Amino acid sequence: MLRTHNNGELRLSNVGQTVTLCGWVQRTRDKGGMIWVDLRDRFGITQLMLEEGQSSKEALATTRSLGREFVVSATGTVVERLSKNDKIPTGDVEVKIDTITILNPAKLPPFLIEDITDGGDDLRMKYRYLDLRRNPVRENLILRHKMAQQVRSYLDSQNFIEVETPVLIKSTPEGARDFVVPSRMNPGEFYALPQSPQTFKQLLMVSGFDRYFQIVKCFRDEDLRADRQPEFTQIDCEMSFVEQEDVLQLFEGLIRHLFKTIKGIDLPELTRMTYAHAMKYYGSDKPDIRFGMQFVELKSEEVDLTSGKGFPVFDGASTVVGINAKGCADYTRKQVDELTEFVKRPQIGAKGLVYLRCMADGSLKSSIDKFYSPEDLKTWAEAFGAEPGDLMLILCGEGDKARKQLNDLRLEMGNRLGLRDPEKFAAHWVIDFPLFEYGEEDDRWFAMHHPFTSPKPEDIQFLESGDFGKIRANAYDMVINGVEIGGGSIRIFQKDLQAKMFEALGFSDEEAKHQFGFLMDAFEYGAPPHGGLAFGFDRICSLFGGSDSIRDFIAFPKNNSGRDVMIDAPSSIDAKQMDELKIKTVL
Amino acid sequence: MLRTHNNGELRLSNVGQTVTLCGWVQRTRDKGGMIWVDLRDRFGITQLMLEEGQSSKEALATTRSLGREFVVSATGTVVERLSKNDKIPTGDVEVKIDTITILNPAKLPPFLIEDITDGGDDLRMKYRYLDLRRNPVRENLILRHKMAQQVRSYLDSQNFIEVETPVLIKSTPEGARDFVVPSRMNPGEFYALPQSPQTFKQLLMVSGFDRYFQIVKCFRDEDLRADRQPEFTQIDCEMSFVEQEDVLQLFEGLIRHLFKTIKGIDLPELTRMTYAHAMKYYGSDKPDIRFGMQFVELKSEEVDLTSGKGFPVFDGASTVVGINAKGCADYTRKQVDELTEFVKRPQIGAKGLVYLRCMADGSLKSSIDKFYSPEDLKTWAEAFGAEPGDLMLILCGEGDKARKQLNDLRLEMGNRLGLRDPEKFAAHWVIDFPLFEYGEEDDRWFAMHHPFTSPKPEDIQFLESGDFGKIRANAYDMVINGVEIGGGSIRIFQKDLQAKMFEALGFSDEEAKHQFGFLMDAFEYGAPPHGGLAFGFDRICSLFGGSDSIRDFIAFPKNNSGRDVMIDAPSSIDAKQMDELKIKTVL
Repeated sequence: MLRTHNNGELRLSNVGQTVTLCGWVQRTRDKGGMIWVDLRDRFGITQLMLEEGQSSKEALATTRSLGREFVVSATGTVVERLSKNDKIPTGDVEVKIDTITILNPAKLPPFLIEDITDGGDDLRMKYRYLDLRRNPVRENLILRHKMAQQVRSYLDSQNFIEVETPVLIKSTPEGARDFVVPSRMNPGEFYALPQSPQTFKQLLMVSGFDRYFQIVKCFRDEDLRADRQPEFTQIDCEMSFVEQEDVLQLFEGLIRHLFKTIKGIDLPELTRMTYAHAMKYYGSDKPDIRFGMQFVELKSEEVDLTSGKGFPVFDGASTVVGINAKGCADYTRKQVDELTEFVKRPQIGAKGLVYLRCMADGSLKSSIDKFYSPEDLKTWAEAFGAEPGDLMLILCGEGDKARKQLNDLRLEMGNRLGLRDPEKFAAHWVIDFPLFEYGEEDDRWFAMHHPFTSPKPEDIQFLESGDFGKIRANAYDMVINGVEIGGGSIRIFQKDLQAKMFEALGFSDEEAKHQFGFLMDAFEYGAPPHGGLAFGFDRICSLFGGSDSIRDFIAFPKNNSGRDVMIDAPSSIDAKQMDELKIKTVL
Repeated sequence: MLRTHNNGELRLSNVGQTVTLCGWVQRTRDKGGMIWVDLRDRFGITQLMLEEGQSSKEALATTRSLGREFVVSATGTVVERLSKNDKIPTGDVEVKIDTITILNPAKLPPFLIEDITDGGDDLRMKYRYLDLRRNPVRENLILRHKMAQQVRSYLDSQNFIEVETPVLIKSTPEGARDFVVPSRMNPGEFYALPQSPQTFKQLLMVSGFDRYFQIVKCFRDEDLRADRQPEFTQIDCEMSFVEQEDVLQLFEGLIRHLFKTIKGIDLPELTRMTYAHAMKYYGSDKPDIRFGMQFVELKSEEVDLTSGKGFPVFDGASTVVGINAKGCADYTRKQVDELTEFVKRPQIGAKGLVYLRCMADGSLKSSIDKFYSPEDLKTWAEAFGAEPGDLMLILCGEGDKARKQLNDLRLEMGNRLGLRDPEKFAAHWVIDFPLFEYGEEDDRWFAMHHPFTSPKPEDIQFLESGDFGKIRANAYDMVINGVEIGGGSIRIFQKDLQAKMFEALGFSDEEAKHQFGFLMDAFEYGAPPHGGLAFGFDRICSLFGGSDSIRDFIAFPKNNSGRDVMIDAPSSIDAKQMDELKIKTVL
């Protein structure tokens, strides 16, 4: 080793020892008679010290020539510091330097290598290898490493086997977002990169592996919204001879294990909420339940407190629904206008916002006073359980569309009221997802999860009767703080049921065979009941790290155009290479 | 859970309990009055029992309808067996069945799901999901899982951080064997799949990660020889502020940890051998040192015991070299002919084989007696340290070419003499590899390892003087039982030395910049001294599993044409998909 210690380990107990340290120059302070150097590595910072008259001329000269981020090796004696630094673990000591060697000089980095840097996003991405030197970024990746170790440790203890499934697989006609890979040895043919190892993990159940997992890269060639990556990592799991309850229990155990071992938090047992409940009371299939503020319906299929009073906007809407922002009655006109602008943004698309204030004296004021009597407003306030000081925010529109808009407003109010502390964690399961969803554009039913998801036994009748919208699936998502971190389902393992499912999805026998042939074949040789789920590993890491961005938890992420700006990929390739692959580009 | 126990856990202590088991029907034996079913899952086999007159008619009828590999659930009482089976851990008990349910019927598998199967390679590959049901295949993958867990555990304990590097990277002009991936979002441009994460791990060292590892898929689009796969898995590692000795020590520690934890073997400290020694005495850079049989030179640059006696074959060769096959003097004419045929096979390419027998009475007999006197033969026998009963096998030719032929013969003799027991392990380092090798075809020097490998300090003079062939590198391979399981090097981290290296390799500044630009840039911002290595994980698993074939240790391997015959990949893709990717095939 070129060092005797790293820069995080020297303590008072080392005083008097001769040590050699290596690392990067964080900063130097030259006070004429004394020079101090902060030497940094992954493990910490140690202060080096040289003294005019005591240290060698050579060492002094070398030290005076150091620039930021130079790589050096320094040998000297550990001494107790006169003025201790209690902010760093090595702050009680410094190293009085005898010799110092520049292992490698460094150009001045284009931004500060400090916890708070002056580098913008683009610059830091281009020089990602320098950004990774900063503590917060490195800490994120160390967190990721620890999370992966703990995931493996827990699943191993539960008899799961990690199996690597192939990366070069087969493209399916459905796989419009597959990345494909031309094969040189099989001209004109292509592999595809997996969007998930779904079929392979089901095959492993057919193989009797019983419990499988994998922390695995997956790929999707889709237009990237903020915080999506063309390659991402899943914790992929599958179990045999289980029912939904077993899967929920086991993976609730995983997430609680992670909270305990990584963050020292005893996460309470996860609550459960049906999809129908989540949509009705939160307008979202991944509600943030760190705070209440559940939806109250003023008009819906079940209730109508708004119609026939001459307010055409509410009369023309099927749904009028609102939230009670406790204690916000004193919001100014400007604040309410801001909220109105917020819901009218194109991303949300509401037409307007109606408010109802419950004043300190219990009186009610609304933006639509002229249509509704005080008695009308009182019935609303009662529905909201309004107390003096509360502000009701009300949207209208068509069913789930209006609810989704209100979901955005609810989350915004949660933010404004400080109800979404990233260091507080509320985890729950959303269950009983619909089996199908209707695609308006294509005018057909699609599998909400995937075509192998099993219906609830009591809803299979609707598969026969064609009431596809009524069928609930044995499908579940884990949601933490309003983020869906994982989801899965119990699979169909019976050939007959699978055939009915394909029929409902409008697949001919032939199409089903073409797309899923080898899996269908495999299922004929004795498929066990099985189910599983997959977690978004990047997402869990960012949640544990208290960040909204998965990019901060990926060593070398790509930007929104799918580019790695550091290595400049993708890029054009040689004509010769294309010739060998028997392809050409058509631009 | 659909079961109370798995099929590997019932013991005498469970007698009297009511249990539910699930699994696959291994076999049924119907003796009229009694029926037994062997029920199998990943954990073992448990015997079910039904009795005419005692068991329900329904259960008896269901059981009689079972076929091989049917998936069933069965509930009953654990009873002590009359005739115990000491070959399986559950052999003391059986389960007297009350109810049995067919969860899924199964078509008859195309081959026997037994340890010894009647299925050929092709059939088992097509139905890999059935082959994976067989114990030996599943055990291989469980071994692989355990190995990966132990690798991670050891490296984590040594302060290594596992970092996922990207799979979608940049193709380099050198990357003739890159798989490429067209980018839909960046028409005309391609990602490449990594042949190794080499540049990224070096960037992580520049980032100060200090110790990195990853168990990672790598990809190479090359013509597949037996036992190569287009996607394969590496244990990839890199460390900062280290010298060669540190890397050797640390990864010797890893391999000894694996032998201890996986196989319960205390592997001795690894010996070391220079590349020059390995080539001279074994004709191979990965000698199998489970046995001796080192080469003895009769003619080389240093010795000549063969010339000028009128044997034109030896006279015309620069090298005459042989091995002493102890105790083989009684080989028959037929056996010697077999060996001659062996070395004359085109894969080996020797012109012929000369032998020298040391008879029981100490007399010497050779196939070329007529050219050499008994005194000549005696000098040979002395060189070989021959004792009565020994058989010397001698080849001639040009230097390393002849030695490589003799290496094949040595290994063959090792096999014949039972000196290569797969359950014995001899591990060592081969060090001091040449930095360059000369490419006859291209008439230029190539980096033997890669262009970032550092020369030994004492040999840098030859870089200046142009004696490229004389330069030894800080490069090393770990060899176990004649298999190279890993290798690496200390890297160049100094800009000037790297420039000289590129010059020697015939790269212009521009070419170097184009190919390795971002790494070269990164090195200017303070690169630490660093080095590392990569192990072939598939290979290590097969070595530990006592097999020659890595394919047995990959869940879903591809065949020699790079095809996955189970899923039928690669395959053609939709014209629409190609349009979106702006590519077309040119066949």
